[in-house]
Amino acid sequence: MSELQAIGMSARKAARQLAKLDRAVKDRALLGIAETLESKQPAIIEANRKDVAAGREAGLSDAILDRLTLDGKRLSALAADVRKVAGLTDPVGEEFDQKLLPNGLRLSKRRVPLGVIGAIYESRPNVTIDISALCIKSGNAVILRGGKEAIHTNAALAALVRAAIAGAGVPADAVQFISSTNRKLVDEMLKMKEYIDLLIPRGGAELVRRVAAEAAMPAVTGGIGVCHTYVDRGADVDMAVGIAYNAKVQRPSVCNAMDTLLVHAGAAPEVLPKVAREWGKAGVEMRCDSQSMKILQAVKGEMSNGFKLVPAGESDWGTEFLSLTASVKVVASIEEALAHIEQYGSGHTEAIVTQDYAAAMRFVDEVDAAAVMVNASSRFNDGGEFGLGAEVAISTSKFHARGPMGLRELTSYKWTVLGSGQIRN
Amino acid sequence: MSELQAIGMSARKAARQLAKLDRAVKDRALLGIAETLESKQPAIIEANRKDVAAGREAGLSDAILDRLTLDGKRLSALAADVRKVAGLTDPVGEEFDQKLLPNGLRLSKRRVPLGVIGAIYESRPNVTIDISALCIKSGNAVILRGGKEAIHTNAALAALVRAAIAGAGVPADAVQFISSTNRKLVDEMLKMKEYIDLLIPRGGAELVRRVAAEAAMPAVTGGIGVCHTYVDRGADVDMAVGIAYNAKVQRPSVCNAMDTLLVHAGAAPEVLPKVAREWGKAGVEMRCDSQSMKILQAVKGEMSNGFKLVPAGESDWGTEFLSLTASVKVVASIEEALAHIEQYGSGHTEAIVTQDYAAAMRFVDEVDAAAVMVNASSRFNDGGEFGLGAEVAISTSKFHARGPMGLRELTSYKWTVLGSGQIRN
Repeated sequence: MSELQAIGMSARKAARQLAKLDRAVKDRALLGIAETLESKQPAIIEANRKDVAAGREAGLSDAILDRLTLDGKRLSALAADVRKVAGLTDPVGEEFDQKLLPNGLRLSKRRVPLGVIGAIYESRPNVTIDISALCIKSGNAVILRGGKEAIHTNAALAALVRAAIAGAGVPADAVQFISSTNRKLVDEMLKMKEYIDLLIPRGGAELVRRVAAEAAMPAVTGGIGVCHTYVDRGADVDMAVGIAYNAKVQRPSVCNAMDTLLVHAGAAPEVLPKVAREWGKAGVEMRCDSQSMKILQAVKGEMSNGFKLVPAGESDWGTEFLSLTASVKVVASIEEALAHIEQYGSGHTEAIVTQDYAAAMRFVDEVDAAAVMVNASSRFNDGGEFGLGAEVAISTSKFHARGPMGLRELTSYKWTVLGSGQIRN
Repeated sequence: MSELQAIGMSARKAARQLAKLDRAVKDRALLGIAETLESKQPAIIEANRKDVAAGREAGLSDAILDRLTLDGKRLSALAADVRKVAGLTDPVGEEFDQKLLPNGLRLSKRRVPLGVIGAIYESRPNVTIDISALCIKSGNAVILRGGKEAIHTNAALAALVRAAIAGAGVPADAVQFISSTNRKLVDEMLKMKEYIDLLIPRGGAELVRRVAAEAAMPAVTGGIGVCHTYVDRGADVDMAVGIAYNAKVQRPSVCNAMDTLLVHAGAAPEVLPKVAREWGKAGVEMRCDSQSMKILQAVKGEMSNGFKLVPAGESDWGTEFLSLTASVKVVASIEEALAHIEQYGSGHTEAIVTQDYAAAMRFVDEVDAAAVMVNASSRFNDGGEFGLGAEVAISTSKFHARGPMGLRELTSYKWTVLGSGQIRN
């Protein structure tokens, strides 16, 4: 038996125990994790320093080093997130779709954990804590496979988590961490469908695609968002500017940030210069089609230093920029906007800004995406913002769960049937 | 572009049109299919005769030839099934989980079709009609790949279905049939994840396992049921005998038929001979552990001619018999029954017969299966019996849907968000 199979077997066993635990025990384990994140800060930060130093030596970018770094403030924020998960409703045991059948059978669906979750992630060590907390709360065991850049930090965090949950009566093996950074282990993990019920990749597009293509078990497809915001003719100009700014600038590195701004030709002459002025202040580079370029070239003189115009190439449509870059296109009609979104969207988050009721309803009806929004920033497609409390991922798959995946989306159900001797004719 | 990719592209296009159709149009298409199944009986039966003749020549078993054969009565029954689907509620467009958030965003989930369903099935041509009807009603396009034994029948049925739905305003390409029986096409189909959103295998265990292992897109895992019925100490004896008889004999060839009878040692001396007497009349072969063998050997003289006792081997536990065979074991306690089910069950349907409230509740709580039943025949785990109207499969996966999959389980949802200019802080 390989090391990974042994981990799988003990995770499976822990999952069976965890599935039966009361909410109180699970919440106590979560509060124990939060507590240890605060009381053991020096040890965590020391482990983290090793990773950061090694990363600096290896020439990792400042952005990656920043994602890697944990300090007291970040650890306290992580602890607060775990306490928040403890406060969420336990999805396990919920009964729904109850029916009393004419033959007297009492039918119900009961929510149960999925079993064992596998998480494969990259440089951010907070994922170790986030996913562990959500898995424990939803009654699932988890096998963690973090990136090698954060190996010391993740190992330290996982050891603390295991001790904390064991102290609360949750089996330590409900959280297991793969301490080897051998890449072959990922291949093995992707095939372990006897032991892992669902794989969650958290990281760049390459990781997500690899897991989707190669996993033998179900895997969450998500985290890749090519998001459009369409500003309709007659849209409220201030609203359009506010939404365009928020969707692009508030946090450009995430999947629900806007990538492409589509503007109706009738709105473009007024809306585009105003959006460009705000975006210019934040340093957004605009990759423009010929019509938007013409409008914006004409007002170039009024713009600040951050104003950047670049002619759009074909590759700028359907691209997730994850940075302060946006492609911009003027469209002749809502039909053209819908066709563009159908061709280039990734089914993540699509938004319209409009005052026209029929256009709003049509956009909602016709766009096929995890979230379709009217007069709101695409940044709202998020488990916390949607009231799920937290999320493990934003799914762009139509299977099992679509959009933000919170605790409920980490569960399945079983049918329970209470009879009094019924037989089938 | 391969022939199959062309089929995939036109299915994708048809799916987009179908997703927007009203219930009335879809129901009209279904009624058109029902009508054609009755009016075109001579043509269908003629095509079917070719398959049956070829099958007889190829030496297919009587059971397979029976499944293959269509006559007027069976076609009328199929038409009635399609009319029943037309009468079911349309799942598409249902809005649920609505919330008005504190920031004024109006959130809702709206049920939408999955897109394109692929169905791979074996000798029964009725699947062509069943799956087409359920897919059309749930707004999904379908690509059908039937077995070579039924190729003439399936081709004739698919052509009639396409004509019927086109006459009602549903694109003909919403139902496509792969007319080549080249086995390589199945390999290609299993990889076409750009065009197929969900694969449904309908057939034997080998087909289901192959699709689960090799499909690049989500696939329904199901149709394999190793089902136990546990008769507890103090169970009502007549009820136990009735349920055991029904679960094993009423239709032994299906996945929700009982495979293993577990009987508490305190109930075995009274229950086992009575079950054996009834089973004996039906010709059920009993594969017995040593304790049940001892009890049944002692009463052999009182049994009818059909009474068959065979010592159980290890391979008789965890086996889906799909025939008039059952394994039988005496257990010392409910704990032993639960452990046996955990070790050998396939997570399909597990039942307890008991008068003990605590035992009933414990069984429901602890058994991990798609359906867990108290005092009812395992044969009830069925979409029709559970009130879903119809089913495409019984899933043993915990992902997406578990247990009977009806129309709702052929859908996904999208989040709709109606705002008034909200941006994220």
